Amino acid sequence: MNNDELALKLHKDNKGKLEVVPKVKCETREDLSLAYTPGVAAPCLEIAKDKEKSYEYTNRGNMVAVVSDGTAVLGLGDIGPEAGLPVMEGKALLFKRFAGIDAVPLCINTKDPEEIIRFCKQIAPSFGGINLEDISAPRCVEIERRLIEELDIPVFHDDQHGTAIVVLAVMINYLRLVKRKAEDIKIVISGTGAAGSSIIRTLYNYGFKKIYAFDIDGCLNKKDMDSYNDLKKELMNYVNLDDQPYTSLKEALVGADCFVGVSAKNLLSVEMVESMSEKNIVMAMANPIPEISYEDAIKANAYIVGTGRSDYPNQINNVLAFPGLFKGALEAKATRISEKAKIAAAEGLASLVSDEELSTSYIIPGVFDDRVSDTVAEAVKKAIIEEGYIRR
Amino acid sequence: MNNDELALKLHKDNKGKLEVVPKVKCETREDLSLAYTPGVAAPCLEIAKDKEKSYEYTNRGNMVAVVSDGTAVLGLGDIGPEAGLPVMEGKALLFKRFAGIDAVPLCINTKDPEEIIRFCKQIAPSFGGINLEDISAPRCVEIERRLIEELDIPVFHDDQHGTAIVVLAVMINYLRLVKRKAEDIKIVISGTGAAGSSIIRTLYNYGFKKIYAFDIDGCLNKKDMDSYNDLKKELMNYVNLDDQPYTSLKEALVGADCFVGVSAKNLLSVEMVESMSEKNIVMAMANPIPEISYEDAIKANAYIVGTGRSDYPNQINNVLAFPGLFKGALEAKATRISEKAKIAAAEGLASLVSDEELSTSYIIPGVFDDRVSDTVAEAVKKAIIEEGYIRR
Repeated sequence: MNNDELALKLHKDNKGKLEVVPKVKCETREDLSLAYTPGVAAPCLEIAKDKEKSYEYTNRGNMVAVVSDGTAVLGLGDIGPEAGLPVMEGKALLFKRFAGIDAVPLCINTKDPEEIIRFCKQIAPSFGGINLEDISAPRCVEIERRLIEELDIPVFHDDQHGTAIVVLAVMINYLRLVKRKAEDIKIVISGTGAAGSSIIRTLYNYGFKKIYAFDIDGCLNKKDMDSYNDLKKELMNYVNLDDQPYTSLKEALVGADCFVGVSAKNLLSVEMVESMSEKNIVMAMANPIPEISYEDAIKANAYIVGTGRSDYPNQINNVLAFPGLFKGALEAKATRISEKAKIAAAEGLASLVSDEELSTSYIIPGVFDDRVSDTVAEAVKKAIIEEGYIRR
Repeated sequence: MNNDELALKLHKDNKGKLEVVPKVKCETREDLSLAYTPGVAAPCLEIAKDKEKSYEYTNRGNMVAVVSDGTAVLGLGDIGPEAGLPVMEGKALLFKRFAGIDAVPLCINTKDPEEIIRFCKQIAPSFGGINLEDISAPRCVEIERRLIEELDIPVFHDDQHGTAIVVLAVMINYLRLVKRKAEDIKIVISGTGAAGSSIIRTLYNYGFKKIYAFDIDGCLNKKDMDSYNDLKKELMNYVNLDDQPYTSLKEALVGADCFVGVSAKNLLSVEMVESMSEKNIVMAMANPIPEISYEDAIKANAYIVGTGRSDYPNQINNVLAFPGLFKGALEAKATRISEKAKIAAAEGLASLVSDEELSTSYIIPGVFDDRVSDTVAEAVKKAIIEEGYIRR
């Protein structure tokens, strides 16, 4: 059987990947009288007096909703909420496996941003946080922004910021390895959707200022701004600050230090990579087929190559970020996950690669490195507490 | 420590009662590549082609949402969604313990019936069924009715029908014990809210025709109908069919065979029970303090006494009904839980008490009788399949 057949078999044999199980005994009348009526009235009344107690007497403080409308599932597009379920179950599995967090897949059948916002606000009392997932751009950006403003539990759209945090961690270690400064690095990004826009914002906030972004309409630039949607207009604060008149990705890549691809397969030729600076870094993360294959990038003398794939070095996988990020936020009693918290997560992640270990083929820890989620969590917790985005 | 203190400790020590755990391994890259990307795309695409496949490749077919707005939690009233969480977690625990069903507590912060209906329709793609819980009457009746009409997954408001099914099971065995017919039994019911109205409807549908219902305004009767809400108007199809001019519960109970209390503590005096027929049955289910204590009912020579409490014989607990009911509905691929399915559930439950065992102190199986949920499930499944309320 090939991988697809094995995956179908795994899902069918197990009828999904999750179950909801009791943490307490329920074998005797006595057990029932504590976990359910009449005893359960006691925690109910405590919470009725003080909602904050819901974090003490229920699972809320360790419970995250994974909310999707199924409009941008993996690279498959708008396949609908039912078809998004296997991914959301997978996400919930990763939450538990990598951070001990209980997560619930909620695929909903509305695409209306206002309804998605209303839905998330309605479920907020039951959850410690909300992970938005696979909601298409540009709607996802506005939905998340509104929810961060309007809710007092952390809301995080992983497709935007998960990858951005890991990309920043890679770039932090790239700076260590090549001993250069962020402001000197020329970065070319292909893709300005959910992931691309957050990568741009996060890299800029960290200190990278020479960023050029491409999407289907070409290089983002001032003279086309009137035709841009709000998201692209916002990105103009961070990209092409010296107003370069690039007419193609190929042109922009000449002498560039870094390529970040969150766009489409096979965009990048060997020649284009060869035209980049000497100690360059290529992150080709289109899924499952990257912008350039690992082999071709190596052939083009790329100095460092990262992909989304587990079968090559330097896997850029957002599972390195979101479990620890939520763990830290929940432990901090966070009301939001701030930009500083995201940068702290990237710094924590990057710090796990020691000076001795750091190399072109080990720029970022592996997915199964069991120090990752606790290290990210601690960094995030510290940042959130320092900023004061905490309940009470 | 008393029971309340023990319950608080149990909830606090465990930080709630549920967790969400993986059913599949996630220890290697290979595991990840099947449970998550890239393998997870295969079941996604199968479901995108045919939504029905969501029941094969995900946990949906065994997953129930426990939805509450926190307006009628236990006997505590409108204590809000956060404060309802311990009960909903308890409910989810019972679903797993008694029927192997995975259930998710969703306490939402809207009380608007239209918004609750919209919410349930939005989450439907992620669940095999919806258990409405602790939503106040009369809103709960309309919300459930609309959802049954508008959704193709089973929707069931346990506060209405759970108790009704168990009460009917008790009455079926009462008829067996006293060797009488349903149409000859005079029943007086106190309470016409969520539970009371469903008990009335269910008993009537089974064949009981001499039913008299009381609420805070007295005996339901034709001459006051204009002042009734829609729910009470509907109940007039089932109660007081011979138009009795009862002015008090006391008056109606003279010669009655059955009292059903889902109302308020200490409504019933020893004298009132003494005025009932000889082989009478008193179900006093107000929670936690019943309409008459077990001891007083016995003192009044009640023939059979049932309460909601586990420390007396004949516990009338809806955990005897809802787990098996949903199990049967999910196994049948039900699109709805019909009136016939509810009656079948009661018959299945009643059948577990053999002729030899049947007695005044054993009219209904115990909560921990491990035959209950499977027997109820089989009966429900058969009824639903016969009626054709199934997908495809």
